[in-house]
Amino acid sequence: MGKLYLIGIGLSHELITLRALKIVKSVRKVFIDKYTGILPDNGEEIKKVVGRELIPLSRKDLEEKFSQVVIKELEKGDVAILVPGDPLVATTHIALIIDAVKHGFSFEIIPGVSIIPTALTMSGLMVYKIGKIATVTYPHDGILYEYPYNVIKENDSRNLHTILLLELDAEKGIIMKVKEAIDILFKIESIRCEGVIRPERLGIGIASLGSSKTNICPLPLKVLRNCDIGDIPHTLILTSPKLHFMEEEALEVIRSEFCRAVCK
Amino acid sequence: MGKLYLIGIGLSHELITLRALKIVKSVRKVFIDKYTGILPDNGEEIKKVVGRELIPLSRKDLEEKFSQVVIKELEKGDVAILVPGDPLVATTHIALIIDAVKHGFSFEIIPGVSIIPTALTMSGLMVYKIGKIATVTYPHDGILYEYPYNVIKENDSRNLHTILLLELDAEKGIIMKVKEAIDILFKIESIRCEGVIRPERLGIGIASLGSSKTNICPLPLKVLRNCDIGDIPHTLILTSPKLHFMEEEALEVIRSEFCRAVCK
Repeated sequence: MGKLYLIGIGLSHELITLRALKIVKSVRKVFIDKYTGILPDNGEEIKKVVGRELIPLSRKDLEEKFSQVVIKELEKGDVAILVPGDPLVATTHIALIIDAVKHGFSFEIIPGVSIIPTALTMSGLMVYKIGKIATVTYPHDGILYEYPYNVIKENDSRNLHTILLLELDAEKGIIMKVKEAIDILFKIESIRCEGVIRPERLGIGIASLGSSKTNICPLPLKVLRNCDIGDIPHTLILTSPKLHFMEEEALEVIRSEFCRAVCK
Repeated sequence: MGKLYLIGIGLSHELITLRALKIVKSVRKVFIDKYTGILPDNGEEIKKVVGRELIPLSRKDLEEKFSQVVIKELEKGDVAILVPGDPLVATTHIALIIDAVKHGFSFEIIPGVSIIPTALTMSGLMVYKIGKIATVTYPHDGILYEYPYNVIKENDSRNLHTILLLELDAEKGIIMKVKEAIDILFKIESIRCEGVIRPERLGIGIASLGSSKTNICPLPLKVLRNCDIGDIPHTLILTSPKLHFMEEEALEVIRSEFCRAVCK
C-alpha cells in the first residue's frame, strides 16, 4: 500500500524545498499537475532539478480519472504529485487527498512557497493587513463577474490589502495579464460607479514572482494599465486605502529595485 | 560593495529552498535572525543543512546596531541573513532593507515557506477565505489586549478564517501555547460578552507545522483548551462561521491523519 505525497514546488524551480527533492527521489512514480498552475518553460527546469520522469496530469486525470491514473499506482507503491506553488490551494487538491483516504491510502503534504503571502511581503506590505482574496475572470457570454469589485470594496472598508489572482486555465492557454485585469476592473467601475477603482489608485503589478526575472511595479492603475511588466504568471495587488509609513518607504525601495516595466 | 540577501528558511530546516542554499554557499558571511522567530533545536539542524558558520543576530543587532554589525560587513562583500519562515513578515526586516539601500547597497529577497497560508491550506481550509491576521498577546500590567477579539468578530461577519499568531519573544523565552491563547480569548469573551468565543466553537490547534512532528487538531475550543498538542511553535486558527462542505470533509481527513493530541 503506497502513500500519496502532495508536493508544492513553489513559485519557481529554484524555490523547491529539500524535503520535496528527498521525497521525489524515493517514490515509485512522480506526477506533475499541469492543470491548476503554470510551469515556466513547460516544466523543463523542474525536470532537470528533480532528475526524474514527470508524468503530466491534465484536468481530466485529476478530476475524473484519478482512480484509474493515480490510485492504481498507489496500489503498487508510493506516489508523488508535484503542484506549482502551494499544494492545497485549489479545491482540486483537497478532493485528491479525500479520495486517496477513502481508498485506504495515507498521505503527506509538503508545503511550498506560495503566491500568498509572498506577493504581499515581497512588495514590502504588511502581511497582517491581508484581506480576502479574489480572482479576476474574463467576461463570459458578455457577463462581467463583479465579485472582485465587492471584495476590494469590503477590504477597503477595513483598510486591508487585496491580492487579486488572475484567471488561469493552463490547458486552454487562458492566462490573464495585469493590464487585462485592470481593464476589466475599470469596466466594472463604469457600471457600478462607486469610486472603488479610480485611475489614480495604486496597484502593484507583479510578474514572474520568485524567479530571477521578478518584476514588482507599484504604480497608479492608469499608468500600470499601459505597462509591459514582463512574463507570466501575473498577479495584481490593490493596496489598502491608507498605508503605514513603513509600507510607503518599502514600496519606494521595492519600486526602484524590482520594477523594470516598459510603459507607454 | 556587497549585496544583502534576506533569506526565508521556511518552517523547518527541511523546507529550505535550493536557491537559499545556493546563495548561502556563495556569500562572505551568513547571519541568522534569532529574534523574530523560533529555530527548533536552537538552529542546530539548519546549521548542518547549510554547512556554514551562522552568526546570531539579536534584537539589538537587528534594530540598533545594524550598521556596526551587518552594514560594516556589506562593505567587504555579500552577506546573507537567514530568517525563520518568510523573510519580510516582520517590520524589522523591512527596516533592514530600507537601511541597506540608504547606505547604497542592493538587496535580494528569497521567499520561504510561510505560516501564512500554510496553516490554512494544510488544515484543508480555503485560502480564498483568509481574513485579517492578529496576534494574541499576554496581559501586560493586568491589561488584556482585546484587538484579536475585534479581528475575529470582523472576520466572522464576512465568513472568513482567522489565523492567530501567538506572542513570541525568542530572546525573553516568551512563547505562547495554544491552550494559553484560548484561555486569553475566553477571558476577553467574559468581559465583552458578544458571543464570539463560545466554548463549542471550532478551533484548529497547530504545532510544529512543516516538520515531521506536525500536529493539526481541529477541535471545539473547550476540548482543545485541555489538550497537549506538542512542541512549539504553536498557531491557532478560528474557522469561519460557515464552512464549505469540502472544508468540512477535509477537516475530518486532516484530523484523523494529523491530530495526535493528548487531551484531558
